[in-house]
Amino acid sequence: MEPFSQFAADGRLRHLITLEGLEPELLRELLARAEHFLRVMEQGGDHGPELAGLTVANMFSEPSTRTRASFELAALRLGADVINLDVMLSSRVKGESILDTIYTLQAMKVDFFIIRDAQPGVTQYVAEHVDPTVSVVSGGESSLTHPTQGLLDALTILQYKGGFRDLVVSIVGDIRHSRVARSAWQALSILGTGEVRLVGPAELMPEEGDFPGASRHEELDSGLDHADVVMMLRIQNERMEQARVPDADRYFDRYGLTAERLRRARPEAIVMHPGPMNRGVEIASDVADGPQSVIRRQVTNGVAVRMAVLAHLAARARERAA
Amino acid sequence: MEPFSQFAADGRLRHLITLEGLEPELLRELLARAEHFLRVMEQGGDHGPELAGLTVANMFSEPSTRTRASFELAALRLGADVINLDVMLSSRVKGESILDTIYTLQAMKVDFFIIRDAQPGVTQYVAEHVDPTVSVVSGGESSLTHPTQGLLDALTILQYKGGFRDLVVSIVGDIRHSRVARSAWQALSILGTGEVRLVGPAELMPEEGDFPGASRHEELDSGLDHADVVMMLRIQNERMEQARVPDADRYFDRYGLTAERLRRARPEAIVMHPGPMNRGVEIASDVADGPQSVIRRQVTNGVAVRMAVLAHLAARARERAA
Amino acid sequence: MEPFSQFAADGRLRHLITLEGLEPELLRELLARAEHFLRVMEQGGDHGPELAGLTVANMFSEPSTRTRASFELAALRLGADVINLDVMLSSRVKGESILDTIYTLQAMKVDFFIIRDAQPGVTQYVAEHVDPTVSVVSGGESSLTHPTQGLLDALTILQYKGGFRDLVVSIVGDIRHSRVARSAWQALSILGTGEVRLVGPAELMPEEGDFPGASRHEELDSGLDHADVVMMLRIQNERMEQARVPDADRYFDRYGLTAERLRRARPEAIVMHPGPMNRGVEIASDVADGPQSVIRRQVTNGVAVRMAVLAHLAARARERAA
Repeated sequence: MEPFSQFAADGRLRHLITLEGLEPELLRELLARAEHFLRVMEQGGDHGPELAGLTVANMFSEPSTRTRASFELAALRLGADVINLDVMLSSRVKGESILDTIYTLQAMKVDFFIIRDAQPGVTQYVAEHVDPTVSVVSGGESSLTHPTQGLLDALTILQYKGGFRDLVVSIVGDIRHSRVARSAWQALSILGTGEVRLVGPAELMPEEGDFPGASRHEELDSGLDHADVVMMLRIQNERMEQARVPDADRYFDRYGLTAERLRRARPEAIVMHPGPMNRGVEIASDVADGPQSVIRRQVTNGVAVRMAVLAHLAARARERAA
Repeated sequence: MEPFSQFAADGRLRHLITLEGLEPELLRELLARAEHFLRVMEQGGDHGPELAGLTVANMFSEPSTRTRASFELAALRLGADVINLDVMLSSRVKGESILDTIYTLQAMKVDFFIIRDAQPGVTQYVAEHVDPTVSVVSGGESSLTHPTQGLLDALTILQYKGGFRDLVVSIVGDIRHSRVARSAWQALSILGTGEVRLVGPAELMPEEGDFPGASRHEELDSGLDHADVVMMLRIQNERMEQARVPDADRYFDRYGLTAERLRRARPEAIVMHPGPMNRGVEIASDVADGPQSVIRRQVTNGVAVRMAVLAHLAARARERAA
Repeated sequence: MEPFSQFAADGRLRHLITLEGLEPELLRELLARAEHFLRVMEQGGDHGPELAGLTVANMFSEPSTRTRASFELAALRLGADVINLDVMLSSRVKGESILDTIYTLQAMKVDFFIIRDAQPGVTQYVAEHVDPTVSVVSGGESSLTHPTQGLLDALTILQYKGGFRDLVVSIVGDIRHSRVARSAWQALSILGTGEVRLVGPAELMPEEGDFPGASRHEELDSGLDHADVVMMLRIQNERMEQARVPDADRYFDRYGLTAERLRRARPEAIVMHPGPMNRGVEIASDVADGPQSVIRRQVTNGVAVRMAVLAHLAARARERAA
């Protein structure tokens, strides 16, 4: 079998499993389209017709109210039919194989599969097997990839900073296990960001050689120095142990973003978080709700970016069908 | 912080958490609008455009098939996008705070939150914190409030009795713990109902001074005497013990509405129940299904009243945006 | 009470609980309508208006992702409002009776109930009690009936074989407990199929006298001889014991459809399966995915057939209302 490609034979994007390998032009096109949909959402009123007559299957096996809701709203606002299937593809409901489930839904004329599965590789595996008219979009996968999160983070930075070239972006926390960090770093690298810093305990840093080009900081203070963008990550309790941090309070002491520490960054630095936040663990509440926080804007951008991705992929499918 | 108000600065209704303090003109306007939507529903066909382009988030933490379905259908029939979120806001999914969940959905451009949470106060707390363009509607809260139920009860009485001034309305059962009783009493008081009677065991009567203006009857027979409207309440098993009623049969003996007892009321009296009914406990089956029962009509009115509330609130939001 | 009839007083189909007793003309009309909807689905684009303004309640108590999704998509693609209710009607949620639940939803102006309940008879019971404007459709019931499955099987055979008169159709597996076998046999009998064979262990054959006109084969080889259509059934583990087959491997040895065995059938024979498949138990993977398999086509036909049934019933309701 040929190595997997997210691109169709004509060179156009067909699936979105990872941001890795995407051209900056494509990312900029998606971000511009997301800006368009932000304006549409602001105005309210009738839906876009981009997905009229198309069907989106939301298949989230992990509890993920927010990302599932974001995709569901993006699809509904483009006029799609949406079905929500609470299935863990990798757990073989009724002994049915992953592909039999997918082929069954595909035969019902599902045009888009949005997938988050507990088992890494499932999303790509599905993408490798669906019909040429069908697209697969990752809803976030293990510690590997969360491409629409990477896009929404890039869009947010673009809105507040106007570009990427001269920026210092500090990503803080459990980099090693974070699909958010990886996808953000991919988007930022593709878009030519000045400097990306990975900040966190040594035990939670990625493998040597991973995240090439990014600098590494074990101390929060140096990591934040003159940063334009501070992107905090959610920390899982089980990771603290791995990082030899005894509890949430100790984690906050070492890596929690406080107003005082934020002053190490540039005065106009923005603060980001993918949510849901552990207030008082990785971020202080007054920072989360403070004037530099753009966390809610990220959420709005998330819907717009998902609309942009779905509309982009739908346009390809329609031209192909015509 | 200012005391909570359901009204916007311009004096128009913005949230619907309780009927307390609403003017009779507003209630009559909502009831008239509900009558309009009843006619629309009878005719079938295309949807109203009142909520086109708007998004409703249904957040029911208690199992409540019927009220959730009623709100969902009301929103769909007005053209809204609807997402159902099975969340208990007060239980902090993934450690996320109530407001972070709400702000996240608000950032996705949710325009209406319909909330039923196990913890009293959550709905108002959300309403106190959402953006000015967002409305919160109670889906029923503890023993405190169920405003759309109160409206649908008032609409049903208006349809069958033509007015409220000369009526005797008997509410029977566990008044003390009933949001249905409280909201009905509020609606009836605002609309100038002749006499409201609370009928039930002394232990299940509200506090002294609560439900001002309503008379109290411990005996069902006297409570039903010459009543125009008999509103039966659902009794929970755990409340019988509190009322020293040993079991459901004994409750039925003392407070169950039978055809014979119904003859104490006026011949043209109507029988109401919010559902779901305990047949043979608070109401005999032949009465529930008999000619005086308007119980199914209440359900239809429930959808119409919820359409009216959503459309009323949406009109405010749209004018504000324009 | 009169015996139950799926037909309204005017002789038109009102419910679809079973295919038993339907005229061949009606089946052919439904299949032709399904063909129409297949073309509509192929073209994508806007929805049919057949169910615009109507409401479908999906009530599936058994886990059944595929059939529920198929009905949901059929209804959405005809423009209906759809609500999904995960209720076991026969388990009396909150002590509410089956009919109170149904009457409540009916009062909310639900026009179609799609029901799969664990308890046989519930679907007909509901159909016997709903208002004249409301239709009930079985989503599959115990070992008794699965009418839309029978229709999609008939449609698939018609597409590949052009007719029924000269065909040999072999249904293989646990005939006794299979609603799929029964409904397929009903459809095939009504449409005048040349020969229907029931193939399986003696212990899993239907009662003597049941499936009149069908021949019976205990050996797979003779059962497949010169067959035009081979319809494999899903086998439940608990049925193997009943058939004194010690395990899945032994079942596959005796009744599993392999490429070699399939050669007993006609060269152009088609292979069907209602899904979900137990690969390596009742069917070999290479056969399931092979050139003679029409299994995915069955799934597509399933959506089209459900659209046809809903549209047919809706047309009756609309004319009645006009």
